[in-house]
Amino acid sequence: MAEADAAAIVVDWGAKNFRAWLVNVDSGEVLGEIPEGRGMRDLARQELPGYCRAVLSRWRDNPRREARPPVYMAGMVGSQIGWLEAPQPPLPKGPEDLAECVVEVPNMPDTFIVPGVRVQEDDGRIDVMRGEEVQIFGALSVAAKDDAILCLPGNHSKWAEAKGGRLIRFTTNMTGEIYNTMLDHTILGKPADRKAPWNETAFEQGLEQSTHDGGVLDHLFTARSRFLYGGLKSEHIAPFLSGLLIGHEVRAMDDHYHSGGQDVLLVCSEALRGPYERALTYCGHATRWIDGRAATVAGVAAIIRRHRAAGGAAVGAAD
Amino acid sequence: MAEADAAAIVVDWGAKNFRAWLVNVDSGEVLGEIPEGRGMRDLARQELPGYCRAVLSRWRDNPRREARPPVYMAGMVGSQIGWLEAPQPPLPKGPEDLAECVVEVPNMPDTFIVPGVRVQEDDGRIDVMRGEEVQIFGALSVAAKDDAILCLPGNHSKWAEAKGGRLIRFTTNMTGEIYNTMLDHTILGKPADRKAPWNETAFEQGLEQSTHDGGVLDHLFTARSRFLYGGLKSEHIAPFLSGLLIGHEVRAMDDHYHSGGQDVLLVCSEALRGPYERALTYCGHATRWIDGRAATVAGVAAIIRRHRAAGGAAVGAAD
Repeated sequence: MAEADAAAIVVDWGAKNFRAWLVNVDSGEVLGEIPEGRGMRDLARQELPGYCRAVLSRWRDNPRREARPPVYMAGMVGSQIGWLEAPQPPLPKGPEDLAECVVEVPNMPDTFIVPGVRVQEDDGRIDVMRGEEVQIFGALSVAAKDDAILCLPGNHSKWAEAKGGRLIRFTTNMTGEIYNTMLDHTILGKPADRKAPWNETAFEQGLEQSTHDGGVLDHLFTARSRFLYGGLKSEHIAPFLSGLLIGHEVRAMDDHYHSGGQDVLLVCSEALRGPYERALTYCGHATRWIDGRAATVAGVAAIIRRHRAAGGAAVGAAD
Repeated sequence: MAEADAAAIVVDWGAKNFRAWLVNVDSGEVLGEIPEGRGMRDLARQELPGYCRAVLSRWRDNPRREARPPVYMAGMVGSQIGWLEAPQPPLPKGPEDLAECVVEVPNMPDTFIVPGVRVQEDDGRIDVMRGEEVQIFGALSVAAKDDAILCLPGNHSKWAEAKGGRLIRFTTNMTGEIYNTMLDHTILGKPADRKAPWNETAFEQGLEQSTHDGGVLDHLFTARSRFLYGGLKSEHIAPFLSGLLIGHEVRAMDDHYHSGGQDVLLVCSEALRGPYERALTYCGHATRWIDGRAATVAGVAAIIRRHRAAGGAAVGAAD
C-alpha cells in the first residue's frame, strides 16, 4: 500500500507527442513508460479525454479507486487548444507555488493539469511557457542546484534563470519553428537536401555567420547567396541554417543571461544536445546536459509531492 | 524613324509578376504599358519564350525587324529558375558596367536580359540581387543624385549605397517573405485575422517591441504571448508582426548604412510606402519616396542607352 500511495502517472502531452511514466514520487523511480502517443495536433479536442483514459488504462484499470495512481499532465494539454485551459500564473514560481495552481480535470477522478507560467514585466514584456517550467524544476533537482541559468532548446527554445529553487525569468526563442518553416516554406529551403547526413562544417559556417554585423533577417538570406555563389551545397543548407539560428539564439540570450562562469544547464533530448553544446561552447559557455525526459519526470514528481502534502491529491481517499 | 529608333520594351519579370512598358529611351516617356501578367511561379520554364512573345506581340508585330523595338528584361527572368541564367557580376557596378553584362536571348531577335549583381566581400559576406539594381540606377536618375543610401522594401528588402552613380554595396533582409511565412505557417499566424483593416497602433507596438533587448527570434514570439495575455487581438497580429519585422530591418541596417543626415531614398510601391516611411521616421531617418515602377523604367532606359551606345542593340540593323 505504501508503494501504491507513492505511485503517480506523469504525462507530458504536447502538440506533437504524448509521453507517460508511472513513477514512485518519493524515490523518483520510473516503474513504467509509454514512450510515445498522439499529440494534440492529431486529435480533436473531444477525443482527448477518451484517448487519455484508453492509453493509461493499463495503470488505472483497477476497480478500487485508491489503487489507481493519480494522473498529472503537463504541456500544451493545458493550453487554449488543449483539453482544459489552465491559466499561466506570473513569475516568480517554485514547485510549491505551481502545486497550488494545479487544475483538477472534471469527470476523470484524481486527474490534474499542471499549468505553465508567464512573465509580465513592468516594461510590457510578456512571455509564456507550458511544460518547460516542469523541466526546469526537474533539472534543478537532478543537478542539485537552486540557482542556475538554463537553456531548453526546441521548437520554442526557452532560456531561464532560477534563484533559490524558483523560476524568476525566462525568454522564448522561436528557433526550432523558424528553422523548420524556413526549410519547408521559403526560397531558402527549395534547393535543400534534407535527407543528407548532418554536415558539421556547414553547421559551423552558420554559427560563424551569426557573429557578423547585421541581423537574422539579413543573415538568413546568405543561405541563398552562398548556395548560388558561395559553395554551399544542397546538403549543407539545413545544417547551415541550424548553426545560424542557434548561433543567433545563444548570442542574443548572452545579453540577457550572463552565466558568470557557471555552467549553463542544457535540458533537451539527445538529438538537440550535440548542436546546442557546440553552439554554447562556441560562444564561450560551459554546459551540463540533463536529459529532457528525466527532467520532466523529476519536475512533475517534485510538484506532486507538494500537491499531496497540501492535500491536493485524492489518492488513498475513499470513493 | 528617329522615334522608332528610340523606342524599347522594358520588362520587369519576377516570380509573381510580369510588367512591361514601351518607352522612349531618350526622353524616358512611357508610350504604352502592360501593367500585369503571369510571373515565373505560374509558368513552366518552356512556356516563358512563347508567353513573352505573345504578350509583347502588340508592340513587336511588324514584318520589318528594324521597326520592332528591342526587349530588355530584368528580374528573376535571368535567374536559375528563369528563362536563361544571366550570371550576376560583382560590385561595384554602374549602368554602363551592367550594359556590358547584358545577355542576348537566343532565338528571339533583339531581346536581352539585364543581369543582377552580387556582392562578395573579403570577409566572406555574399549577397545577391536581381531587378533591384535596375531600380537603384533609376532612382538615382529620378532623384538626380550620384550618392545615396537607398531602401527597397519587399519580399527580399534591399538596402544599398551608391557612390558616383555606381552601386557599391547592398544587404538583403528577408522581411516580406518572413512576414508572410510567419502568418501562413507558424503558431503566430493561427489566430490572426488577416482580412481586418490595417491597425496603425498595433504596427507601432511592433515597432516599439523591436527596440527592446533580445533578437528577432525572441521578439516574434511576443505576438503569441501578447495575444494570450497582452491584449493583442486577432486583427492586430499582422500589423504587429509587420512593425516588428520592419523595425528590426531598419534598426539592423542603421548599423550598416549611416545616412549621415541625408535622406534615405525609399523605392517601392505605394502600398509599402506607408509602413516603411513610418518605420524610417520612427528610427530617425528622413525619406524621399520614389515609385518603384518609375524607377524600373528609368533604370532600364539608362542601361539601354549605354547598351546602344556600345553597339549592343541591333535595332536599325538589317536582318
